[in-house]
Parts: sequence; C-alpha cells; structure tokens
Amino acid sequence: MPAVFFRSSSDTATGWEKSLKELIPDLDFRAWPEVGNPEDVEFVLGWKMPPGSLKQFPNLKCVCSLGQGVDHIFADPELPEGVQIMRLVDPWMSQAMSEWVLLHVLRYHRQAPEYEELRRTKTWKSLPAPDTASRKVGILGLGALGADAASKIAALGFDTAGWSRSEKIIEGVTSYHGADQLIPFMQRTEILCCLLPLTPETEGVINAETLAAMPAGSFVINSGRGGHVVEEDLLAALDSGHIAYAALDVFRTEPLPEESPFWEHPKVDLWPHVSAQTNPLSGAQQVADAITKVFRGEAPNNLVDPKTQY
Amino acid sequence: MPAVFFRSSSDTATGWEKSLKELIPDLDFRAWPEVGNPEDVEFVLGWKMPPGSLKQFPNLKCVCSLGQGVDHIFADPELPEGVQIMRLVDPWMSQAMSEWVLLHVLRYHRQAPEYEELRRTKTWKSLPAPDTASRKVGILGLGALGADAASKIAALGFDTAGWSRSEKIIEGVTSYHGADQLIPFMQRTEILCCLLPLTPETEGVINAETLAAMPAGSFVINSGRGGHVVEEDLLAALDSGHIAYAALDVFRTEPLPEESPFWEHPKVDLWPHVSAQTNPLSGAQQVADAITKVFRGEAPNNLVDPKTQY
Repeated sequence: MPAVFFRSSSDTATGWEKSLKELIPDLDFRAWPEVGNPEDVEFVLGWKMPPGSLKQFPNLKCVCSLGQGVDHIFADPELPEGVQIMRLVDPWMSQAMSEWVLLHVLRYHRQAPEYEELRRTKTWKSLPAPDTASRKVGILGLGALGADAASKIAALGFDTAGWSRSEKIIEGVTSYHGADQLIPFMQRTEILCCLLPLTPETEGVINAETLAAMPAGSFVINSGRGGHVVEEDLLAALDSGHIAYAALDVFRTEPLPEESPFWEHPKVDLWPHVSAQTNPLSGAQQVADAITKVFRGEAPNNLVDPKTQY
Repeated sequence: MPAVFFRSSSDTATGWEKSLKELIPDLDFRAWPEVGNPEDVEFVLGWKMPPGSLKQFPNLKCVCSLGQGVDHIFADPELPEGVQIMRLVDPWMSQAMSEWVLLHVLRYHRQAPEYEELRRTKTWKSLPAPDTASRKVGILGLGALGADAASKIAALGFDTAGWSRSEKIIEGVTSYHGADQLIPFMQRTEILCCLLPLTPETEGVINAETLAAMPAGSFVINSGRGGHVVEEDLLAALDSGHIAYAALDVFRTEPLPEESPFWEHPKVDLWPHVSAQTNPLSGAQQVADAITKVFRGEAPNNLVDPKTQY
C-alpha cells in the first residue's frame, strides 16, 4: 500500500493516526519529520506546511487540507503541477463556525460592548432595545460555511443577506453576487461576517473602500482568513468610530505577533484562530474515504478547482 | 369611557400612550402622578408600583404587568382582592429573551472567558474544541419564555433539558418536572438558564444545595428574577470555582446598589435588567385588546392564576 504523510503547523498527528487506523487498519501513516522513502507517499494530509514541502514526493497524487481553506497549499510556489487538492467539508466544523459567528452577531446586536462600558462606571441604565427583524446582517461568502451561518442567522429573525461570486438561493437570505453588487451589499450591512475562501480575488476584500460603504457604527466579524482584511484600514475605521467593534479570529500573521496593535485594542474581540477547529473524530471518515479512492486511482470528494482556488 | 392608569418604575408613559391611542383613539389614558378621579380607573398598566398604589382605585377591574412577570404585583400586601391580574405575553419579548440567553450559552460553550484570559497575557493558544452535541444545557422554567429559549438552544444542536412544575413536551428537549426531579436536572446541567416566574415556590431556587448538585465548572445564566438566586450562595460557588462564570441580568435589589460585589466580580457578566425589554410597539395591540375586553366586562387573555401566581 502507498503511504500517507502528515504535517501540520498546529495539530499533532496522534489523533489523526488513531482515527484513520481505526478505519484503515493497515494504513502506512507517516508523520513529519519521519518521511521514510518519499517515493511511497501518494497522499499528504497537511496544514500550513513550509513552501517546498511537497516537491520531494515524486508520486504524490493528492493533498488534503486539514481545514476548509486551501489557500495555504496554493501559497506554495513549488506546488507540483497536476496534484489533486482537496479540503475537508466537515459538518462538525460548519456547526462550530456558525456558533462562533452567531455568538458575535448576538453580542453586537444586543449592545454587549456598550453595556460593558456602562458597567465600568457602575451605571445601571437601559439602552433603546434593538429590533431583530430590522437588524441587517450580511455574510460574505455563501459556501458550505457561509450558507450554514446565514441560515442560522436568518432563522433567528435577522434581516439577512449574503454575497458570493455567483448567485446562491438560501431560504430567508437575500442574495447579492458578483463584483458589481459588493458595494450595495456592504451599504446595507450593519453586522458583516466574512466566511469567504481566500483567493487572489478575495484578498483584501475588507478595505478602506468597502468599510466606508457600511453604515456608521457597523460591526465586522472575520473568521475567514487574515488575508481578507487590510488590517491598517480596519484599524483606521475602528479608530475613527465608523466601525464600532470587530471580532477577529484570523490575522495576516499567525500566531499574532506580540507587537500587533490588535492584542490590546479596546474595540476588538480577539481569538487565536479557533472558530472552527479541525476534529479528527468527525473528519477521519471523510479523509479515509479520500485516501481509499486516491490509492485506487479515483478522484476524491471535495476537490478544489485550481483556477478559482476554492 | 372608564380610564386607564399607567405607572412604571422604569418606562415613561409616552410610548404606551401614543401606541394605545392609535388603537383606541378616545382612550382616557392617565399617567402617574396625574390620577384625576380615582373612581374612573378600571384598568392599570404597571411595573413595580410602590405597595399600596392600587387600593386607591375603588372600581379597579384589572392590572396588567408591563412585563411577563407579575411578582411585583403580588408583592403588594394591599393588593385589592378579586382584581384580575394579567401579564404581557409578547413574541417580541420572547425573541429578545432567547437571544440574550443564547448569547451567553454560546459565550460559555465556546470558552470566551478562558480565551479573554489568555489574551490578557498575549497568549496564542488553542483550547480543546468543545462538542455541541454533548454539551448539556438546562432551562429552569418552560413557560412562554423558557419554551422558546429551549427550542432555539435545542435547534442549534445542544443536549437540552428543561425543568418545570408540570411536565412539558417540547421537541428535542428532555423534560424534568416537579420538586423530586429538580436535583437530577441540576446534576446533568452544565449551563443553567433560569427563566422561571418568581413565586413563593421558586424563590431562592438557585442556592447552595442546587448549585452543589451541578457538575464542577458549570455556568449559571439568570434572566428570571433576582429573587431566584440566593446571592451569597452564588458568590461562594463562584469564589470556590465550582461555578465557573455567571451571567446575571436581574438582582435582589434593582437598580443594583453601588456596593454590590457583583459590579466588579471577575466571573460575572452583568446586565441592567434589559434581557427582554417591554416594547410598546409590539405590546400595544395586546394591551388594547385587554382594555377593550375589561371595559366590556369580559376576561382578558393571559390572566394569571392568583394561587400559582403565574
């Protein structure tokens, strides 16, 4: 049997090895740095491997991302041509992501930062109650993650819209699509949730121009990728007050450097990229199916189109 | 036409007068302190009126609480006998309450306080990801508010149970009921949400014994009434670490006195009784219907049983 090679900048191999061997008992599972003979490796399970990591495997057929994003794979300038790229599409991760997004939508909708501020001066005071049906929430990206979050937000009664490259039909969610409708989408959105894949087209989509289009006092929630945000533009919008608060789980540089202004920013909810952690218990079946197919010479599910990179 | 008298310790009369007069144009609406002739008043719309406020109205037929709770009315030792007591059952308020409860269920489920603590030392670290399907959330009280919250929490995939005086059937929600099942309910509950009415039976239900029954490291969310919590018992459980965190919207004394230890408690999310604010825009139709019925000598909807006080 050909071999599977595992390398991740954040997960250890133990959980994956255990879960996969329960499904494929005779699996030749190798974890970095123990490569063995690179010619054996046909399948790589990886997360943020250093550029050039994959070119050493002459018989590589498929690289599976340990998360839903594959931007870290396409970021390798020496990515071997013709290798299949796949990503995990895990309902457990969609659930986790929707929870994290919903937590912050509710936090901002219910004026939690303002009540925290009142508490600091021991001020017992009611603010005008917000109205859910007229609260405009917008989701950037309506793929597996964005669609799940949008449905759950709409089910709670928010005025929900989504933006994606092509039109998507989701019950209770107004669809904006294509480059032309991005600014109109931002103009109506008071609470923005970014769940886009990171591609050359979506890089920097949250910038001075798109932020300025949002109503004054709006909120930004980003659990897509750090690369979606022009960080200095977001900081400027927070400092001017045009954006009231931001929840950020992802950053241009991770781990976030100690000198980053986000760490101590009073208008930022900061998380260490944990909105939807990969889970070997729920993801293993999908990876095992893919390994089996790839070793048989078949195409696995959830392949990524190298042109659109999602 | 008989008169309606309005008195609230927290709302002004303006919004209610405007909304009610749109529905009953010739309404004789009087707001404290302008009582006029007390003999005219057959209907009182009130919130936390001082004890003895109602005995001045010899022709009083009905008192409508401006919120879903009526404990503030029964707290009047001079409450005239035979007067009908009704409460608002407003879908807008149920929605608001469920949002507030859900915000804190998600906040604790997703370890937000722990991540906030890590952030203080600029520590970029993932905690083990929580599993929604095995997270045990429990709702004390399955009336209009509790049932709505329980359904929404269950719909998000949590292992949800509820406790009430009599058995309630709600899809996806395990029902515990009666005094005998209170401790078993507390024993399985990791995140407790109190949405009970305050009655002599439920007073102090969250106390040293019931808190001790919960698993170590549990969470308490109270948006019922301050009287449901024995505050010194909750403080002791927070200080020992047995209860990890509490979200409190209601307190024994409101406004919360400046010297209360809750104001600066590091393990408490504190709100000034705003989880479900009364809304004249959505509540007016219900109150107008009740006024019309009472003036005609009929019984309004949502009457409270003086025996159970809910």
